[in-house]
Parts: sequence; C-alpha cells; structure tokens
Amino acid sequence: MQNIKNIFIYGRKPILEALQQRPDEIEKIFIKNSIQPSTISEITDLISENLIPVSKVPQVKIDNLVGRVNDQGFVALMSIVKYANFFDWVETLDQSNNPAVLLLDGIEDPHNFGAILRTAAASGISAVLVSGQGQAPINATVFKTSAGTAGRIPIIRVHDSNQGIKDLTAAGFEVVALSGEATKTVWEKDFNKPVAFLVGNEGRGIEKNILKKCSDSVTLPMTNDVESLNASVSAALVCYEWRRRQS
Amino acid sequence: MQNIKNIFIYGRKPILEALQQRPDEIEKIFIKNSIQPSTISEITDLISENLIPVSKVPQVKIDNLVGRVNDQGFVALMSIVKYANFFDWVETLDQSNNPAVLLLDGIEDPHNFGAILRTAAASGISAVLVSGQGQAPINATVFKTSAGTAGRIPIIRVHDSNQGIKDLTAAGFEVVALSGEATKTVWEKDFNKPVAFLVGNEGRGIEKNILKKCSDSVTLPMTNDVESLNASVSAALVCYEWRRRQS
Repeated sequence: MQNIKNIFIYGRKPILEALQQRPDEIEKIFIKNSIQPSTISEITDLISENLIPVSKVPQVKIDNLVGRVNDQGFVALMSIVKYANFFDWVETLDQSNNPAVLLLDGIEDPHNFGAILRTAAASGISAVLVSGQGQAPINATVFKTSAGTAGRIPIIRVHDSNQGIKDLTAAGFEVVALSGEATKTVWEKDFNKPVAFLVGNEGRGIEKNILKKCSDSVTLPMTNDVESLNASVSAALVCYEWRRRQS
Repeated sequence: MQNIKNIFIYGRKPILEALQQRPDEIEKIFIKNSIQPSTISEITDLISENLIPVSKVPQVKIDNLVGRVNDQGFVALMSIVKYANFFDWVETLDQSNNPAVLLLDGIEDPHNFGAILRTAAASGISAVLVSGQGQAPINATVFKTSAGTAGRIPIIRVHDSNQGIKDLTAAGFEVVALSGEATKTVWEKDFNKPVAFLVGNEGRGIEKNILKKCSDSVTLPMTNDVESLNASVSAALVCYEWRRRQS
C-alpha cells in the first residue's frame, strides 16, 4: 500500500478511448483552457454522461501533473477504485433490512475523505455516494488514509447532491442531513426505512437549498461552545449509531 | 486562528526560568546531544518533575527550529494551551455523575490529535490525558485541526500510560482499553463508575503490557475485513457513546 501512486493518462485519443471503454475508472479529467469546447463535443458528452469531474486548466497545471509530454491539452487522473453506477447498484440492493448509505456533499480534505471511506466500510453501511462537484478525488492520499479500505463498499458518483437526494428518495431512501441546526439528535431518530446520511462540506456545511430537500435532519449534542465536529467524526458517529441499532 | 504559530524560547537561562515559573506552558524541550546531562541537573530535574517531553538532538535540528541564534544548545517549544496537573484536577472533579476521560497512548499524527481534542470538548468528557512518551506536541497544526477548541477541557500530562492507568485507578476511574481484540462492544459496556478510555497509537495500537493493566477492554464491530478504525474515529465513538448514556 505504501507504493500507491497517482496514475495519469494523457493525449486526446487515449482519453477518448478510456471514456468509451472504462469511464468508471476515470477519476477526473483536466483540459487545457484554450481548447474550444465545440471542437471536442464527443469527449465532453462522454464526460458529462459518466458524471466525471472536469477542470479547465492552464498548460502549466498540465505540465505540473504529467511533465513535458505530448499531452495535446488532455490529462486524466485514473481512479484507484472503480466507481459503481447508482442504478445498477440499487437493483442489486437488499432493502429488506433497512440499509444505510452516506451522501457526501463535497468533502475537500483527502484525510477526511479517506477516514470516511474506512469507517463506512467498517460500519457495514451499503455505499458511499459522492457529488461530482467539489469532492476530493480518490487519489493516493485518500487511498492511504483509508488504510487501503477504499473501494471495499461501492462508491457511486452522482451529478450533484440535489440529484443524489432525488435518486435516493426515488429508490426508497429517507435522506437525513447532519446539521448543527437540527433540533433532534441522531439518538432520537427512528431508522425504520433505508436511510441516507447527508454529510456537508468541511467549511460551509450543507447549503440551505439542499438542506430543505432532505426529509429530516439530525445533530449531535455539543458542549464547551464547540460549533461543529470534524466531518469524518460526524460521519462515523451516524454510521455507527445506525450499526448499533442493527445489533 | 489562522495566525497561530509555534513559539520557541532558547538559551540556558531563559529555559531554566520558564521551567521554574511556568512549566505548564512548556510543550517540549530540545537539548543539544553533546551537552553532558551531569552538567545540567537543575534543568533535567525540573523537566522530569514537570513531565515535559525532552529530545536530545544535533545542532542542525536546533538551527532548523530557531535559526542561527545564541541558543547555547537549549530550545523550548511553548504550549498553545496550558497543561493541567492531574492531582489538582482530580481534587476539583465532581465524580458523582460518573465522568469520562480519554487517556492517549502516544497519538503521533497532529490531525488525529487535533480532531480528538475537538471531539473530546464537544462530547462533554472531563479531560484528556496524554503520555509524555511519543505523543504529538500541541503545536500550531494540532490547534488548527482542533478548530481552536484545544484547551476547552483540561489537558493533563502523565509520565507514561502505565503511570496514567495507576493514577486514574487510584482516583476511582475504571480504565477501559479500546482494542480490536476485545470480545465486548462498547455498546455492551456498563458505565456505572468514572471511566477512562485508553486510545492506542495509530500504528502499533496498545502494547500488551499496558493492555493487561486496564480493567476492561471494548471494541467496535468491523465488517468488510477492516482491521481497525482511525484513532480519532475510535475516540469519537466511545466519547459519544458515553455521552448518549447521559441523555
């Protein structure tokens, strides 16, 4: 595990082929900002269809990732784990024992993200859903911080948290936000149907327009004027509270 | 909080004075390795008496900390928070409602340590005890990771975990180790007296000879072949399980 490194591919044709043949193994795509989107619609359509995060960047950023190579303005960071497709996953899910999932609304810190993936796998929840917007990629740091456990449960990309809430709700999940402003503790919450816990970004928490789309919200009591818990700690506390109720 | 920086003092006399006047504000002392201990017994006695971690280091390490100054081979990293004395603290502690504390057995990662201090304060436990051996100092990184909450509950230095277990037991605490090898979950554990949770080092866990001095041990169930949880996650889960029983 000590030797896990980030793997990049580059060049227009290699990236198009990867998008066609193994989009679930592409973590993120970087495109030189001077390339006109209209000239690469085949690539951008596949990126969008497969919910792959994309960044328009200057050439210096591309050089920084892969050095001076014939990149043609295209670089892809390959995934260390394979992403699962939401609808394929839902079809195989046994909902009879009220499973739980995490929906991450843009966790930026790779140490938090790695710790969350590790705890999620350990707790026995069914999947981790990540937003394509603002979420840290599963890079070598995340994989190492997860102690090599990232990918032991399905990781599913959703376009954004709104779409994730919609899809989960349609699939029978109750989406419960972790929010310091909730009036109910997680201990008071009934888990009598499949539940998705929405965990907000480290700095800004969960945006109001997303919060109001959740069917409920819960908090953890905090003393000594502590205003919030670390995101990986919050996620762990709800995953293991769900687990406790199974025992 | 963004401007928190590590503060050092240097020189033999300034450090002797700090040791005499405010030892609870000294985080760690670095002494040049060519200095004969027999020539500085006044300093080493005060270091030992106040349980201050000390490192013998080459001059290059001292230069690295404070630059080229007239350090005379002595540098002290000052604390961002003031340490409390165990016996003073115990005297003021109300044991009637079965308080909880954490005893950290050498947490090395400043991000883990900061997250633990933040969760400990939030959960309402009474103190965090840290071993003088191998424990990360409370430096600027730890303070930032704690979101500025380090020091909202007493932080107490003990010589080592053995001494911590002895002192806590004598003060009426039951010392419970968090160990993946325990047969009982934390959910099955009764908290009917003051409890101290012993959290092991990130890599090596809790050493066997320390484990056998604890009066009990508990675990958290783990699935998907995950072998252990992140130290800050384990600490959070037991602190909040204790808190849940209070509600």
